[in-house]
Amino acid sequence: MIYLDNAATTPLLDEVLNEMLPYLKENYGNPSSIHKLGRQANNALELARKRITRLINSQGKVVFTSGATEANNLAVKGLAYSMHDKGDHIITSSVEHEAVLEPCRKLESEGFKVTYLPVDRHGMVDLDALEHSIDEKTILVSIMFANNEVGTIQPIKGITKITHKHNVPFHTDAVQAVGKIPVDVKELGIDLITLSAHKMYGPKGVGALCISSGLKIEPILHGGGQEDEIRSGTQNVAGIVGMGKAAEVALQKIDAYSSQVKNLRDLLVGSVLKDIMHSKLNGHPTERLPNNAHFTFLGVNGEDLIIKLDENGIAASTGSACSVQKQKASHVLKAMGLSHEEITGSLRLTLGIQNTTQEVEQTITNLNKIVRELRKFSPYKLKYAMNQ
Amino acid sequence: MIYLDNAATTPLLDEVLNEMLPYLKENYGNPSSIHKLGRQANNALELARKRITRLINSQGKVVFTSGATEANNLAVKGLAYSMHDKGDHIITSSVEHEAVLEPCRKLESEGFKVTYLPVDRHGMVDLDALEHSIDEKTILVSIMFANNEVGTIQPIKGITKITHKHNVPFHTDAVQAVGKIPVDVKELGIDLITLSAHKMYGPKGVGALCISSGLKIEPILHGGGQEDEIRSGTQNVAGIVGMGKAAEVALQKIDAYSSQVKNLRDLLVGSVLKDIMHSKLNGHPTERLPNNAHFTFLGVNGEDLIIKLDENGIAASTGSACSVQKQKASHVLKAMGLSHEEITGSLRLTLGIQNTTQEVEQTITNLNKIVRELRKFSPYKLKYAMNQ
Repeated sequence: MIYLDNAATTPLLDEVLNEMLPYLKENYGNPSSIHKLGRQANNALELARKRITRLINSQGKVVFTSGATEANNLAVKGLAYSMHDKGDHIITSSVEHEAVLEPCRKLESEGFKVTYLPVDRHGMVDLDALEHSIDEKTILVSIMFANNEVGTIQPIKGITKITHKHNVPFHTDAVQAVGKIPVDVKELGIDLITLSAHKMYGPKGVGALCISSGLKIEPILHGGGQEDEIRSGTQNVAGIVGMGKAAEVALQKIDAYSSQVKNLRDLLVGSVLKDIMHSKLNGHPTERLPNNAHFTFLGVNGEDLIIKLDENGIAASTGSACSVQKQKASHVLKAMGLSHEEITGSLRLTLGIQNTTQEVEQTITNLNKIVRELRKFSPYKLKYAMNQ
Repeated sequence: MIYLDNAATTPLLDEVLNEMLPYLKENYGNPSSIHKLGRQANNALELARKRITRLINSQGKVVFTSGATEANNLAVKGLAYSMHDKGDHIITSSVEHEAVLEPCRKLESEGFKVTYLPVDRHGMVDLDALEHSIDEKTILVSIMFANNEVGTIQPIKGITKITHKHNVPFHTDAVQAVGKIPVDVKELGIDLITLSAHKMYGPKGVGALCISSGLKIEPILHGGGQEDEIRSGTQNVAGIVGMGKAAEVALQKIDAYSSQVKNLRDLLVGSVLKDIMHSKLNGHPTERLPNNAHFTFLGVNGEDLIIKLDENGIAASTGSACSVQKQKASHVLKAMGLSHEEITGSLRLTLGIQNTTQEVEQTITNLNKIVRELRKFSPYKLKYAMNQ
């Protein structure tokens, strides 16, 4: 199988699994227990915290969660509730992941006001629009580091320049960026950042919210008071150990992303745009994740494309895995102003460090063949199939 | 090491880990992806759901969470918010786990009214008190199946008889009971039940809320809409697979609990009460979990006892792992009317299927020796040490 859906999830690295195994076997203590087995588990959590802060150059607090969705919920709702006496206005973008958009909508239903910043044709947020949206009631700006569908990297430094000026906390969902491009929390001045283990060769079911300033966050999960009273529940020790190791490895692999993975992606994009008529690349031409290729093949249905690719042993996606099952048109592509036809014909191929040149070449060949086939049965047949 | 802290967490069974491993290796798909690897992961989730419903004889919906804390939060807050138009009164007990008590306190801070039912000397809830507390504003009764500290099993059948009569949904945190004693959701008429994998030889970081009736639950985590729109976030596939396998194994091991484990526990309790002066068993004498022994050793500090036991290679606890770190006096023992001295001298030993007769005998010998030693330095020396 050729796996080109690394934005949905990544395989677990052997070295990550090997470090997890003792915590799935003999080191099974509850980190809250005061006996030796408990202390051992707790020490493992502390090492993982250190490795994560090193990856993102943060001096803040690492709160482990069950994944990025929980971390985003905790950041957005947790901050909104704790700052409610100061204001009720939140700014986010129209291309966020559902795990930020849905908490925002929930807050709206409770009376908060949310501004969803528009993006340009490349999925980029406008800094002027951000600055104009901030008012004295604004308590949070949450804008993703890089988009999960089209890979566009937001101007984070420009954003924090504005949020700092207005003294508004800034949260970023950096799930797709961390481990692929350098993310320096201190240098960028990020207050809250969401990470996910399974997007960087760690296990599913574990993520983190890193809180760099002394911001107060209201918990979502109440109980035994673990994670410094911010997130109750017995910690997923093995998962957290895996996330820590994945963070350590990720720090070493960023170079591979900027060279090897990026080269493969560029080969893929270049060949597809050259070989397949009526195809185009979505997202920003340069300010994009090194592993993301997001295409539109006019006259083709993206879902059919994925099924055909799957039959040919290639795992791909139309967009976010979460929304695929619902067959909803991508809100990201809509916000970027793509037409219905452009959205329908979209395909996301996301590479990883495990992909090879041979795999990419095989994918290009298959894509070429499949797009040609599908266009024969397309309602737009006359428009596109003739040229192929 | 002799591990007698099975109420805090249990080791992962080899057969559980073996079933998880493929999902930590080659089967790494995101269950929301529509390609083969995604469908494979989704099928694994469905099998786990079936195994869990079989364990508790439920025909309802299984919603996977990050653990029992999240499941309890989802049950209590999720139901309260969705039923708020019908009423604002919740009934729980004063001996619940913090993962039920804290969500209740949170709801109180938002204007809900919560009745914390008292318990008797054995930790048992009074059914008359429950019936008298229900009024036309009551929207939820949440009472644990069996207590995590003293092991007392609540009269669930009697409770549901009352909640059914008044048409109030009933939730039970059954984390300590499931897998140790038969829990038949259908026969008992339970509406919502919380389960934890790591309390039944499964992995940490995964639990479930099973919803047996058509109750509407407001989500806590908003996002991609996984778990039938009730719990967003990419599922912890390997963890869920482990929980499913643990559920299957647990069904087979309940007999071992009612014989082997119970016999060891009875040996432990019998010997301790016979050999160690001024010791007593807390919790119900008969209606208690087969693996729980909770003692008070008068004139001894429980924390010192745990540290000494730890030095002798025996892992034990004073009470709930979550609250141990905070060194708070147990709210459970307080609610049962124990004196400060009785609470201070308490020790929880919780057995598992892996414990042996030899381990129990060694524990009895060590306990005897350590209690004697500690009493020499006790401020209550004259009162208790002389008799030893």
